[in-house]
Amino acid sequence: MATVPLLADEAAGAEALAIFGDIRAKRQTDYVNNFWRALAHDPAQLRATWDRLQVVMAPGALDPLVKELIYIAVSTANGCSYCVHSHTAAARAKGMTPAQHAELLAVVAMAAQTNALATALQVPVDDRFMA
Amino acid sequence: MATVPLLADEAAGAEALAIFGDIRAKRQTDYVNNFWRALAHDPAQLRATWDRLQVVMAPGALDPLVKELIYIAVSTANGCSYCVHSHTAAARAKGMTPAQHAELLAVVAMAAQTNALATALQVPVDDRFMA
Amino acid sequence: MATVPLLADEAAGAEALAIFGDIRAKRQTDYVNNFWRALAHDPAQLRATWDRLQVVMAPGALDPLVKELIYIAVSTANGCSYCVHSHTAAARAKGMTPAQHAELLAVVAMAAQTNALATALQVPVDDRFMA
Amino acid sequence: MATVPLLADEAAGAEALAIFGDIRAKRQTDYVNNFWRALAHDPAQLRATWDRLQVVMAPGALDPLVKELIYIAVSTANGCSYCVHSHTAAARAKGMTPAQHAELLAVVAMAAQTNALATALQVPVDDRFMA
Amino acid sequence: MATVPLLADEAAGAEALAIFGDIRAKRQTDYVNNFWRALAHDPAQLRATWDRLQVVMAPGALDPLVKELIYIAVSTANGCSYCVHSHTAAARAKGMTPAQHAELLAVVAMAAQTNALATALQVPVDDRFMA
Amino acid sequence: MATVPLLADEAAGAEALAIFGDIRAKRQTDYVNNFWRALAHDPAQLRATWDRLQVVMAPGALDPLVKELIYIAVSTANGCSYCVHSHTAAARAKGMTPAQHAELLAVVAMAAQTNALATALQVPVDDRFMA
Repeated sequence: MATVPLLADEAAGAEALAIFGDIRAKRQTDYVNNFWRALAHDPAQLRATWDRLQVVMAPGALDPLVKELIYIAVSTANGCSYCVHSHTAAARAKGMTPAQHAELLAVVAMAAQTNALATALQVPVDDRFMA
Repeated sequence: MATVPLLADEAAGAEALAIFGDIRAKRQTDYVNNFWRALAHDPAQLRATWDRLQVVMAPGALDPLVKELIYIAVSTANGCSYCVHSHTAAARAKGMTPAQHAELLAVVAMAAQTNALATALQVPVDDRFMA
Repeated sequence: MATVPLLADEAAGAEALAIFGDIRAKRQTDYVNNFWRALAHDPAQLRATWDRLQVVMAPGALDPLVKELIYIAVSTANGCSYCVHSHTAAARAKGMTPAQHAELLAVVAMAAQTNALATALQVPVDDRFMA
Repeated sequence: MATVPLLADEAAGAEALAIFGDIRAKRQTDYVNNFWRALAHDPAQLRATWDRLQVVMAPGALDPLVKELIYIAVSTANGCSYCVHSHTAAARAKGMTPAQHAELLAVVAMAAQTNALATALQVPVDDRFMA
Repeated sequence: MATVPLLADEAAGAEALAIFGDIRAKRQTDYVNNFWRALAHDPAQLRATWDRLQVVMAPGALDPLVKELIYIAVSTANGCSYCVHSHTAAARAKGMTPAQHAELLAVVAMAAQTNALATALQVPVDDRFMA
Repeated sequence: MATVPLLADEAAGAEALAIFGDIRAKRQTDYVNNFWRALAHDPAQLRATWDRLQVVMAPGALDPLVKELIYIAVSTANGCSYCVHSHTAAARAKGMTPAQHAELLAVVAMAAQTNALATALQVPVDDRFMA
């Protein structure tokens, strides 16, 4: 269970409900997932998070699917179970293939491994890597 | 400084030197960066890491540049300074533009933020996100 | 389930039982939560943790509620589900309002985000921030 | 060094420069710290971060100093050296006393310790801690 | 639930099944645990992980039980619930006593605590600790 | 630089100085390392940390060297540069050989890798791993 009740539509205030409506419209589904229902206790945070998420995840110099892969990578490294599940589902919805998922995990695992080695060895940064 | 001396070519054993040679050949540069010189104290680990890295980062279902972006994302979340520097340099060498770098950071920051929110709220995973 | 059985009063040794008694007396409740029942396998650790916790969380230059907020912040960043739940409950018992909870989460999310940005950018510390 | 050049006023674009001006005005100092100069490569991120930071850190249900203490706690748990330095300096500027600093660190250390114990023991959350 | 279905023997491909067979033979049990069944979607990763694990965890300069203790320590710090459970079970199978488990946890907790203090204080490394 | 000045003997109060004396006597060296000099601003924390450290790291069911290896593992996973350096030096002082150091790093790297895989796959814990 969450540390706050998940707000059903009936329990959400007008401001939160308006954002739920926006989520439904933009995502073309009636389903509002638990993250937003937990955030709804703080409509200002709900609004700020939802607004920023749309800007950040929109197509740009990087493809939306690539952005989801990056999101999964960060969520994995941060150990956020909810986020790993929700963004793996989102990546699949955006077309992630099993082969892409497998390669993503291989890179994440490799990075975790060499991160640990570089930290345990306290390797100094090469001058040429400095911007 | 590292927790072990960085091995110059003269100090490296035959096995490590052979791998340095392979790194030089594959990367088409005489430069062997500090990570490998620190790992060279354990030629078996050096070999395993270098061999696996080539497999994992090779073109496949994901583009090599995308893999570098994922590597930076994980290294950032794990707080590995060396890895952030070296893989940002590697991503640039593979063509990462300033706009792509900026979008990568925006996604990493967004993920870090919602990871924290989902964890603080202990949001339960929606049934529909389960595979 | 825990990696060790949670010790009921009947299963706890005399030393652990004495500490359970102290927890009950100080907290004015008969309930001993799972953390202490898991720690009870190592009475010395149980004693050291319980004793230190009382010193650290006592009123001082910081208010006990502020200390609980800090505890939640650290537990969130460390991804400790048990600790997020137990200290959110403790903060509420000490008077944390929904508005304070919301602001706490906003700061934690903001910090997680700028932590990620500063790490990805490897920003050098300004001279003036040095003590 | 950072993974991007820190932008001096002369190198910053008009949009970034306008935000630098806002930072100077709000903070009543000519000094713009390195974090903002690194972020200035992406004026949209700079704007979003600076705008949100002001909202989040403003006086509200929690005191601005308490918010800085929480920021330090998260930055410590996330291992962000820049952020620990900059927010410790900010907390001092907002009146943090040595005694408050010491108590903050005591709580952060205690939380880190019990987070580790709860995770190693995989303690299940008590029913009564559920919201 | 996992982000991929756990592959039963009937669902696993020939390559994964061969590795399952190797796991069964080496571990002298018919039981193949969930980690390998989840990894089996990527037989190359399954093979690389299983092969490397055997090399790394084999008796050498460190005892296999000591290696399991180190594995638990890392898994705890990384907040990996599955890994804490599976390696605590593995350590017990290799002879870990309750007293050794308790001392392991005491060291992990102590390290987590002083890690936090050293990071919050940003203590510079003593010259004499440099290799 | 640290977020507090490192206290030289001349600047330390009587209580901190007494603990410095105890560190010198127990370690049979005149050198007091930076961690203790930073902690000395809070003599109560200095005392609590030093006292507990001696208990935790003393010979018991685990060898003191094994405890140092566990300490390095946790410090690496937590990304604490100071702690990695100081405990690698401590482990060497207690007899850690280069081969033991190499095996420690191999296990730490392996654990970091499988931690990431298990988290990205969200593998459910096998019933038989439950205590």
